[in-house]
Order: sequence, then C-alpha cells, then structure tokens
Amino acid sequence: LGQGELDLIDALNRALGAAGARVITGRGDDAAVVRAGRFAVTSVDTMVEGVHFRTSQLTPAEIGHRALAAALSDIAAMGGATPGEAYLALGLPPGFGQPRALELIEGAGALAARSGVTIAGGDVTSAGELIVSWTVVGWADRPQQLIGRDGARPGDLVAVTGELGGSGAGLALLAGAEVGRIDAAVRAALHARYARPEPRLAAGRALAAAGARAMIDLSDGLATDAGHLARASGAELEVELAALPLAPGLAHVCASLRRDAREFAATAGDDYELCACVPPSARAVAEAAARSCELRLTWVGRVRAGKPRVRFADSDRSALRGYEHSL
Amino acid sequence: LGQGELDLIDALNRALGAAGARVITGRGDDAAVVRAGRFAVTSVDTMVEGVHFRTSQLTPAEIGHRALAAALSDIAAMGGATPGEAYLALGLPPGFGQPRALELIEGAGALAARSGVTIAGGDVTSAGELIVSWTVVGWADRPQQLIGRDGARPGDLVAVTGELGGSGAGLALLAGAEVGRIDAAVRAALHARYARPEPRLAAGRALAAAGARAMIDLSDGLATDAGHLARASGAELEVELAALPLAPGLAHVCASLRRDAREFAATAGDDYELCACVPPSARAVAEAAARSCELRLTWVGRVRAGKPRVRFADSDRSALRGYEHSL
Repeated sequence: LGQGELDLIDALNRALGAAGARVITGRGDDAAVVRAGRFAVTSVDTMVEGVHFRTSQLTPAEIGHRALAAALSDIAAMGGATPGEAYLALGLPPGFGQPRALELIEGAGALAARSGVTIAGGDVTSAGELIVSWTVVGWADRPQQLIGRDGARPGDLVAVTGELGGSGAGLALLAGAEVGRIDAAVRAALHARYARPEPRLAAGRALAAAGARAMIDLSDGLATDAGHLARASGAELEVELAALPLAPGLAHVCASLRRDAREFAATAGDDYELCACVPPSARAVAEAAARSCELRLTWVGRVRAGKPRVRFADSDRSALRGYEHSL
Repeated sequence: LGQGELDLIDALNRALGAAGARVITGRGDDAAVVRAGRFAVTSVDTMVEGVHFRTSQLTPAEIGHRALAAALSDIAAMGGATPGEAYLALGLPPGFGQPRALELIEGAGALAARSGVTIAGGDVTSAGELIVSWTVVGWADRPQQLIGRDGARPGDLVAVTGELGGSGAGLALLAGAEVGRIDAAVRAALHARYARPEPRLAAGRALAAAGARAMIDLSDGLATDAGHLARASGAELEVELAALPLAPGLAHVCASLRRDAREFAATAGDDYELCACVPPSARAVAEAAARSCELRLTWVGRVRAGKPRVRFADSDRSALRGYEHSL
C-alpha cells in the first residue's frame, strides 16, 4: 500500500461519517468488528469498467451507487434480512485520482445511509481499470424469514415489482441511440434507472412477510433470472410477455431501436426489481405489501409443474435469448 | 453474466465441497445465509495482477492461496476470532480459462479447509486483468477477545512471530535475482514464503489469550506496519534491527542483492507474520503461546512514550523507507 493509498483511505474514512450502532471497531484496524444478528446474509457483487459500466457514461458517484445497489439488491431478494454493513474492494486505474475516488464512495455512502447500511471497511488498490466490488451483509433472526429461489410451487402466482426495461433504455440513450423527441423528464428517469437503481429492500421484506415463497432480483433480465428461480424450484414459470410492466418511455425508445418493447423488458437486465412467487391465497396481502412501499406489483404469470424453465406463453420462442448490453 | 460464467460458478461450487456447519444456504442463492457468532470480524483483501503478483511467477493455485492468506492474516491479527467464512470476487481476464480458474479456487479451498474456513459465496466476472478479492469473516463471543492496533502502552515488549524477509527474498528469486549457489530446499522454502504464506490464525488466538495488548499483521513490512500500530496506540515503538529474526537463506540472497539483510527484513513485506505488543508480565506466557503453535517468537523492541512512530534504535535512519517490490 503506497502512501497515496493510505491518504485516500484516511480521506474515505472521513467522508463516510458515523458508523452504525452495530459497529464496534470500524475502518482503520485490521478488520471491522460488528455486533452480529443471529444469521448473516451475505452477497458479493463486482462491477468492472468496460464490462459493467463505462466511466465516459456515468459519474463516479453513479458508479459507486450502482455497484452498491446491485449488491444490496441480492439482500433484498432474500426477503427478511435487515441491511447491515457493506465492505468495499476498490481498484483504481492510473490517474483516476483521489477526488473522483471520494465522489464514488460518497455516491455509495448516500445510498448506504438511506438504506440503513454502514460502510464498515474495505480495501483500496491500484488496478488496470476501475473495479468496484461490494460485499454486503444483512442480518436475520430466523432462517424462515429468508426467501430463497427454490420455494416456488405449482399454482403460485408470479409477480414483479416496479417497471422493467428502463435501465436498458437508459443505457441505450447513454450509448447515443437516436430516439427522436423524448420528454426531458422521461429521459432523466430512464437515465436514473440505469445510473442509480434502487435496491428493493423494503419491498423484499414486505413480500417475504406477505408470504412470498421464492424470490430473485432482476439483474440479468426476467428471461434469465426467472430461469434461475425455475431451475432452483424444479418448476416451470409461465410468463405472459404482454403482462410485463414497461418503464415509461420504453415503448418510444424501443420503437426507435426497432425492438419489441416487451422482449426488451424481459431481457435487457439491470432493473434490480424483484420477481416473487406467491401462493394465490396471499395475492391481496402481497399487493398491499408492495403498495406500502409505494411500489407497483404486477402479476405476470404462474408456476406450473413442468420442465424447470421460463416459458413465455405469448411468444413463439420458448425462452428469449439474453440481450447483450452494448456498452 | 454469460453462460460461460454460470458454468464456471457451477464448476467452482462442485469443486468446493461441503459447506461448514454454520452455513444454512450457501452458494447458488442470491446470498449466503450463515449462523452468526455474537460479533463479526470482517476484512477485505484484494490482489491484482501486475500490482500484487504476476501470473508468470505464480501458479493459479498459489495466487488463490496467497490472496486468501493475506485476508485471513487480518483476522489472525485481531486475535480471538474463530475463522468462519470467505467470499470471493474473482475477475478473470480474456483467455484465462476455466481450468486455471478452478485451480485458483482449489488452491484457496485447500487453505480454507485446513483453516476451518468455508468459502460460502462469491462473484465471478470478466476483467481486464486477473483480480482476486477476498472478504473474510471471523466470529467472536466478546469484543474483549479481540486485539486492536491501539492498545500498546509504554513499557510493553514488542514481538514478532516466525521469520522475516523470506517472502521478499522468494520474490527476488522469482524475479531472477542472481544469487549464486543456493540450497534447493532453502530456495523452495523462500519461494513458499512468497507463494503460499501461512496466516497465523492459531498464533493470533494464542497471543490474544496470553495477554497481547496490540497486534498487527506484517503485510507491508515491519517498518510500515509497526508504524500503523504506533500511531493507533499513540506511542513510539523502538525496534532493534539486529534483533529481527531472519528467514533462512535471507542473508545469502541479500548479500547477492547487495542489500542489508536486516533492513530488507524490516521492509520487504508480504511475510504475514504477526507483530504483538505484550506487557512484560506476560512475556513467558506469550512465549509459551507461540511455542504451542510451533512458531518462533522473537522480542525485537519496546513501546515507549514518545512520538507515535517506529524508531530503529540501531539504525541511523529514524524510519526505513518501504522497499517497493519490483514485480
């Protein structure tokens, strides 16, 4: 660790503010010491420049926020965990500079603060390109509070939170897609969906409490992620493409891109909404749970006995191929 | 995540074997669920190709082992934590390939298994160069069991475990240093010190139980790391260069490099031994603690009231400058 990196760590520590109530010994010792809950729920998410983002398209604060949001989204998908701590591994390319590194951390720090998460430790190193890796920890009292991918049963209803496709559309706009006239507020909202996704922590907890039997977050797109859930549960997820909730402005952007908006919504990824499987008896409770988080809940399909996969009932393709982001 | 990466994750999961008794839901869901201890002790350590290692100098298994060892060394330095889980963020450069990625994980997995650590989750992504980042978690019943960097008091004795300088000498040999005739076993031992350092987990626990008041692990070299401890404790660490325990073969390598072996031992880094500050009353108990781990303990100095820094009593330089590894 060079002196520049030590200075940066000091600066980061100052920027991060007070530690959460759980933290006994925070940044600055060999390891962070935190008062634990009964069960730790831990996920790792790494974003690499040129693979997951471009520094020419996002501000440092957006890069920091987005990477932390992706990691917290995994905690949200586990349902009943209380967000706890986040640990950062930050790789800085030559010339990135301390001011931008601080902006990156502060962008993540703002999301952490309003998510009830303490950035409790981390590591800063040189790297060939910008690398932002978060390990996030939530705490739960009982494993039964936590919702895996494997609990879906035939007859369950399939829901998604929020709207889909907005992140992919925001990326297309950043990449310079020609979309003609588009309302500035709509453009800004699509940009925000890509640049500052919101982990659905409250909705994940509420849906778990409402009786959701399986959940996954939509990082790679519904066609891919619901497939993981289907395989883990050993059941088929039948989804109606026509039922997917489309982000405002998506139809306009997709018309310009000459892409089917619903297929785009099912495959573009990075929305970080939740897909939940809920028994029919819990339908109204699940809707109320989402409403309590000021979030739309849309029923998009049903779990069936059958080959473990996603089947789009109203598409001639049994599974849509993933849309590869063109960074 | 492309299909190749999903296949790799499946292959890694198969390679890793059974999860530890704490793990409720391991690899394969959105997050790992682990039965917690009362206090979580967490550290992050990242190694980047070209910065911390070269793939031309180390095997994949050594790279995986070495990065995990560095992370676990931080847990060792906290003293009384029981090793728990490790989470991996792995960035693979183009063409690295699944066989080498598996070797890397298996190298780490062997160290994890004999350290009582479960590799409970992680993330695999594409990257421009090889990146291996570990977040490791230990568990403690009481914060008082844990030894920070800030507890050293004037009058305490300063000890180091094992021998110093071996890792730097091993790297010099890898880099092709001309050292004339050197015993093959000595050369292999120096290589191992660099390529497969051993985190001093048992010694850390034993020294904590013996009454050590402050500890740090030697990743950047005693001159640098003891300086962190001095600043955190607000006291001067007076160290006798002549007292430093030198790795077998170091004198020979340093003679060829025309470097002072003791200065090299104080600055070369990557030894992952422990530096502990112990009250004189606990001297014999600390020695017995190290002996119980089949590890040498060498008294190298004393804590004094004074400017918070390391002072080498028998060197005309008040602090040695860090030796920059020439990868």
